[in-house]
Amino acid sequence: MFTHSTQIRVHYALTDQMGFVYHGHFAQFYEIGRTEALRSLGLTYKSMESEGVIMPVIDLHTRFLRPAKYDDLITVTTSLKEVPENSRITFHGEIFNEEGELLNKGTVTLLFLDAKSMKRCPLPDRIAELIQGYF
Amino acid sequence: MFTHSTQIRVHYALTDQMGFVYHGHFAQFYEIGRTEALRSLGLTYKSMESEGVIMPVIDLHTRFLRPAKYDDLITVTTSLKEVPENSRITFHGEIFNEEGELLNKGTVTLLFLDAKSMKRCPLPDRIAELIQGYF
Amino acid sequence: MFTHSTQIRVHYALTDQMGFVYHGHFAQFYEIGRTEALRSLGLTYKSMESEGVIMPVIDLHTRFLRPAKYDDLITVTTSLKEVPENSRITFHGEIFNEEGELLNKGTVTLLFLDAKSMKRCPLPDRIAELIQGYF
Amino acid sequence: MFTHSTQIRVHYALTDQMGFVYHGHFAQFYEIGRTEALRSLGLTYKSMESEGVIMPVIDLHTRFLRPAKYDDLITVTTSLKEVPENSRITFHGEIFNEEGELLNKGTVTLLFLDAKSMKRCPLPDRIAELIQGYF
Repeated sequence: MFTHSTQIRVHYALTDQMGFVYHGHFAQFYEIGRTEALRSLGLTYKSMESEGVIMPVIDLHTRFLRPAKYDDLITVTTSLKEVPENSRITFHGEIFNEEGELLNKGTVTLLFLDAKSMKRCPLPDRIAELIQGYF
Repeated sequence: MFTHSTQIRVHYALTDQMGFVYHGHFAQFYEIGRTEALRSLGLTYKSMESEGVIMPVIDLHTRFLRPAKYDDLITVTTSLKEVPENSRITFHGEIFNEEGELLNKGTVTLLFLDAKSMKRCPLPDRIAELIQGYF
Repeated sequence: MFTHSTQIRVHYALTDQMGFVYHGHFAQFYEIGRTEALRSLGLTYKSMESEGVIMPVIDLHTRFLRPAKYDDLITVTTSLKEVPENSRITFHGEIFNEEGELLNKGTVTLLFLDAKSMKRCPLPDRIAELIQGYF
Repeated sequence: MFTHSTQIRVHYALTDQMGFVYHGHFAQFYEIGRTEALRSLGLTYKSMESEGVIMPVIDLHTRFLRPAKYDDLITVTTSLKEVPENSRITFHGEIFNEEGELLNKGTVTLLFLDAKSMKRCPLPDRIAELIQGYF
């Protein structure tokens, strides 16, 4: 298993009038989490795109256990639990507040697509090499 | 079963550099869908909040079958498949483009909370009455 | 002068914990306003992009007179007060609530850019023809 | 004059299909900039709100000189050029990319409001004390 953590400060734009982070914005926290997880491995999503591979999200499941609030310094934990296969990769995320309480659990599955043909492509070798040591 | 449809024009702010609607923004489409579904029954979520009941989302599951694109006029279909119970309500949504292609499927579960005590409360009578005729 | 009005329902995602629409989101209302204004003339921004002209915003000025609130049905009025020149176009917007109160005033200036060269290009003939009758 | 800088990584949700950060999202960068500027002085906006003072934005002016792009690590510089008076405070912001190029200039004016009465209130003493040493 591969796990990585990053911190995000909740800014005002993300809150709604319930006084919590709007539920749709957690997708952004998980996006930041997996981007920083890849960066920690030496890989940027930006470089993948410039090499012609895009990764659209095909499945997003988020469970809201406790609200995230304005100015919370949250920790996003991003994990890979299986070796990606069939042109797919699934990230498992958890979000904690500063008291260590679990606020949110999320699962995000993305597809590897060739940006020109818009057809599925295999996991790029660069990613495969970087993560295979963790399994 | 109760079903309602509403249309949304995709504006530029919702796109990302992949040229598609950013995956996290579909939560907003489903929000608009269920708000308009309730309005069609004669109920506004706004009036519920002003009467002291809030409805935080506790589970969001979205499946992305085809991308939604800039300026698409999408149709969001919102359905209730079961009578809500245990202070929860689950909306099932589907999003179609103008060609009738299914772009997205989503399930959103919300909790009925007393805004003062922040404790679960039963389904408000007003909603119960409005929807029971459909089951 | 050319003027056009369109209506937008404020959804929950746009509110913040102050109970108002987050100030940064008014840019989206003005975007929708000018897109629908162009559409009323028979022109879609989408078709312009597909013909190779993009219109990045270079100046945005928004004045907040009264807050917009959740579920408000706002009217966005979009006006052209001068014939565009020097590869620029300026839209003047005003946002009213259902009581006719002026909530917001905005001015947005966009540039006509050739999408390939990323250099300024003249106002496309199609737009020039559509708007010249108003001046 | 008081000046403070903070860094923000541009995530995917902020981009649009032009391949740039959507113009309306710069308001969020300036929000983060002034929040962190206040925090550097020992003051959180969150604590101000919990003490009953809210600060709605009443004027936002943003000039877009160069686009911000995905994964850019931008620097937001936030300055106070005058002592706030008449229940108003104006922040001047500049945003630079990693090459030190100026991407954006913004001016944001906020009002001090008593959250209960929704009437203007004087600059809270705590802020006045913290910033007066800079002028």
